Amino acid sequence: MAQVTPDFSKMGGLVPAIVQDAESGEVLMLAYMNEEAWRKTLETGKAHFYSRSRGQIWLKGETSGHIQEVREVLLDCDADAVLLKVKQHGGAACHTGYRSCFFRRLREGQVEIVGEKIFDPEEVYGRKGA
Amino acid sequence: MAQVTPDFSKMGGLVPAIVQDAESGEVLMLAYMNEEAWRKTLETGKAHFYSRSRGQIWLKGETSGHIQEVREVLLDCDADAVLLKVKQHGGAACHTGYRSCFFRRLREGQVEIVGEKIFDPEEVYGRKGA
Repeated sequence: MAQVTPDFSKMGGLVPAIVQDAESGEVLMLAYMNEEAWRKTLETGKAHFYSRSRGQIWLKGETSGHIQEVREVLLDCDADAVLLKVKQHGGAACHTGYRSCFFRRLREGQVEIVGEKIFDPEEVYGRKGA
Repeated sequence: MAQVTPDFSKMGGLVPAIVQDAESGEVLMLAYMNEEAWRKTLETGKAHFYSRSRGQIWLKGETSGHIQEVREVLLDCDADAVLLKVKQHGGAACHTGYRSCFFRRLREGQVEIVGEKIFDPEEVYGRKGA
């Protein structure tokens, strides 16, 4: 029987989860799941993660409404990384307002902004930020 | 001045690095970089990682010849994750012979193989495996 649960042992109970736009293939973000976030993601079809800074489960889009509807769940060869293919509601995954968290490209030691800004974080999260 | 180096502090000197095929957009694998692997990747234009199990730097494709030529390097909003867009030599990133390490899809509690097998690992790595 193939293993259908990620191996949470290598990172103290967490696995990294890559989130990719199911339509465009754009990589939107990387976050972490513990076993509860994994289970809730499968049960609800909405991406849940574990916040290392807050020490708690987090429904992506809970504040912003920009939830991620899970279309596909993939495991890597060692089952220690997860890939979610999602429909990104609200058009943007990043709390900074960019479509993808990976909006900064490194070129010859300089950073250039290559991402598309979809919303103003102050309007979505209020002036205190995310 | 924008930060151009990943934040290695959150994971004991490592950051996760997502590797994506620059042409197709397929997510090929997830690995980890320490500062030396990051520096060598930028210097050589070939993806280097840090093996947590072997405790050493690793040039992807050193044994198999399936190196990853780096086309773009992106940092996420917190600079604690890296995205490499690469040209995958040999057509496959996974040591199991699949094009992508994410060749297993979870559906209704069962795993199905959705990836494409490109090579036979025994031929590439010998009978002892990777």
